[in-house]
Amino acid sequence: MTQTPTDLVLVERRDGVLTLTLNRPDQFNALSEEMLAALQACFDACLDDADLRVVVLAASGRAFCAGHDLKQMRSHADDQAYYQDLFGRCGRLMQSIARCPVPVIARVHGTATAAGCQLVASCDLAVAADSARLAVSGINVGLFCATPAVALTRNVPLKNAFEMLVTGQFISARQAVERGLVNHAVPDTELDQAVQGLVDAILSKSPVAVRAGKAMVYRQLGLPLDQAYDYAAGVMAQNMMADDVGEGIDAFMQKRPPQWRGR
Amino acid sequence: MTQTPTDLVLVERRDGVLTLTLNRPDQFNALSEEMLAALQACFDACLDDADLRVVVLAASGRAFCAGHDLKQMRSHADDQAYYQDLFGRCGRLMQSIARCPVPVIARVHGTATAAGCQLVASCDLAVAADSARLAVSGINVGLFCATPAVALTRNVPLKNAFEMLVTGQFISARQAVERGLVNHAVPDTELDQAVQGLVDAILSKSPVAVRAGKAMVYRQLGLPLDQAYDYAAGVMAQNMMADDVGEGIDAFMQKRPPQWRGR
Amino acid sequence: MTQTPTDLVLVERRDGVLTLTLNRPDQFNALSEEMLAALQACFDACLDDADLRVVVLAASGRAFCAGHDLKQMRSHADDQAYYQDLFGRCGRLMQSIARCPVPVIARVHGTATAAGCQLVASCDLAVAADSARLAVSGINVGLFCATPAVALTRNVPLKNAFEMLVTGQFISARQAVERGLVNHAVPDTELDQAVQGLVDAILSKSPVAVRAGKAMVYRQLGLPLDQAYDYAAGVMAQNMMADDVGEGIDAFMQKRPPQWRGR
Repeated sequence: MTQTPTDLVLVERRDGVLTLTLNRPDQFNALSEEMLAALQACFDACLDDADLRVVVLAASGRAFCAGHDLKQMRSHADDQAYYQDLFGRCGRLMQSIARCPVPVIARVHGTATAAGCQLVASCDLAVAADSARLAVSGINVGLFCATPAVALTRNVPLKNAFEMLVTGQFISARQAVERGLVNHAVPDTELDQAVQGLVDAILSKSPVAVRAGKAMVYRQLGLPLDQAYDYAAGVMAQNMMADDVGEGIDAFMQKRPPQWRGR
Repeated sequence: MTQTPTDLVLVERRDGVLTLTLNRPDQFNALSEEMLAALQACFDACLDDADLRVVVLAASGRAFCAGHDLKQMRSHADDQAYYQDLFGRCGRLMQSIARCPVPVIARVHGTATAAGCQLVASCDLAVAADSARLAVSGINVGLFCATPAVALTRNVPLKNAFEMLVTGQFISARQAVERGLVNHAVPDTELDQAVQGLVDAILSKSPVAVRAGKAMVYRQLGLPLDQAYDYAAGVMAQNMMADDVGEGIDAFMQKRPPQWRGR
Repeated sequence: MTQTPTDLVLVERRDGVLTLTLNRPDQFNALSEEMLAALQACFDACLDDADLRVVVLAASGRAFCAGHDLKQMRSHADDQAYYQDLFGRCGRLMQSIARCPVPVIARVHGTATAAGCQLVASCDLAVAADSARLAVSGINVGLFCATPAVALTRNVPLKNAFEMLVTGQFISARQAVERGLVNHAVPDTELDQAVQGLVDAILSKSPVAVRAGKAMVYRQLGLPLDQAYDYAAGVMAQNMMADDVGEGIDAFMQKRPPQWRGR
């Protein structure tokens, strides 16, 4: 039985929470062309989803994600244009996570390797089970994890990133926390609870502030300090025009919970 | 009794050490327009103060700084131009700390929230009491901490910064050290001693070298490597022309303490 | 007896591993003009060395490297053009380490100070003995470590780097690991074994992938995300044309060790 595109990524929507579950467990959720396309379609759909509040990226089976589909890749041997296009699509997917209008949380269990580790690095937030292990392991098959390096070096101190890239060695969830690749490592049995904790924290905030905030964080990275501040001041002044800010400040001063209207 | 502008920031000058103490304790030292102006005036005055060696930024009362004055802000509802100007002034103040010709040390106790946390991030050095807690908590009132995000993401690993910004949660002084937001966390009773230790270390150096150094650190950030090295080589060659270098090297080779002349 | 240029850096080549040992132990391996030239020649020679796989930068005597040769520098007092040239050559050497086509590992023991600490920061990887201590200590002689600051601020969180630069204080090998300046700190008696572990890990990979990877890591740093991904996709597509990738993927799928051909 052929897996339909829809089967590749299980999509669950509950209130404003979209859970995307990589669902190619027998191939360790490898990012085949079809998987890349299915994920891209999911993130594209987020752009016009006004009620969306947060995305959780999870995976079924024993691994989070093994990176590219080596068997499929090998079947295109010597076709450089194919590879250029394939890695370009992978890069677009990773950038779509940053451009997704709401926070994206990686729920990491098992192993996350190569472009699977890049997925973790590319999410805004990540929670890992204590038993999870992460590596940018393309170097082990002779293929340096170049596109994962883009995401990794923007999350992890340079020497740590370099070591992971040239040795391909796994790091533990705990090490991933120490190096900034993952926000929290928790006992395996508490992984869902920890992810839910982050989801609930985000759901308790004003949607308009969260959306404005996520976009501005990435846009100001790398700007010179004066330009970053000019831009940020404009974002905050705009944010102040939202009904939610008036409600938020009033509620704070009246020591009561705010009632967000989402505008 | 109305507080005069001077009362808002207590100014103490002893030898080359300028201690600025936020002094609006009943409002948790909130950065009202008047407080922003008072602080800006203090940092402006530093620019022409040739004898200044180091600045300590402290606060009176139970909190370090609660960020913007929400009540005052709320009284200008719907006036986007006002907010643009207000946040612009806040950004200028933060940049004035980086442009201050001598090191600025934050002495952090109690809570530092929103633009108060941004103040800590914007200082060159920060020492916190073990009981201090820090948050970029604007999101709790529907106002994403956009200008604080500029300072925070230049101090703290990206995923840690993102989590603080969208959850608004407090981190401990210890966590602030682990994430690079603060240099040292010390027992509350040893806070002044720890700050004084940094002050004394700076006072023991050549003033001309410290001033040249602080300016160059910020200017070279973000430059391409070759440009950064060209610039840095010029700074060092210029520094070598100072009398203090000759004295410093001679003293080092003669195994005696140097006698800085400050030129 | 005058030391010949060749004596200043001991050069040992075994298979693809080049070990460069700073050998001016009585002057704590200070980077005199002659030492800078000797090291520069070694790294220049790496550019055309097709069989080279990895470089280890070590040092003889009690110290790793004390930075510039203060006595020699002092003998050129008031010659700003000389210093400009000297620091320019130092910057070129540090950039030559990043441009070296294979990974460079610092083997750090004793003390690494000023430009000696910069050497550690400039290597791709660094392993330190537990007893090693590192400082950017130029400030102690009135000379701010400006060129070391370029390397340090690209490895270490900003406030930690600033503190080291203005206080000149030593940090331990353990602290250097926590701050990202060094990959691993190990018991002194296990230093060579730990360095060898990294060397062996790199030797076990495809040389063509390691070389392509090292170059791309540095080139994409600081690029905007979209440009970095476009560039990285091209590097990976090019890497896919190597014979080693076919062999690597086949070996992986056949669960056998790969036989690299190095092309």
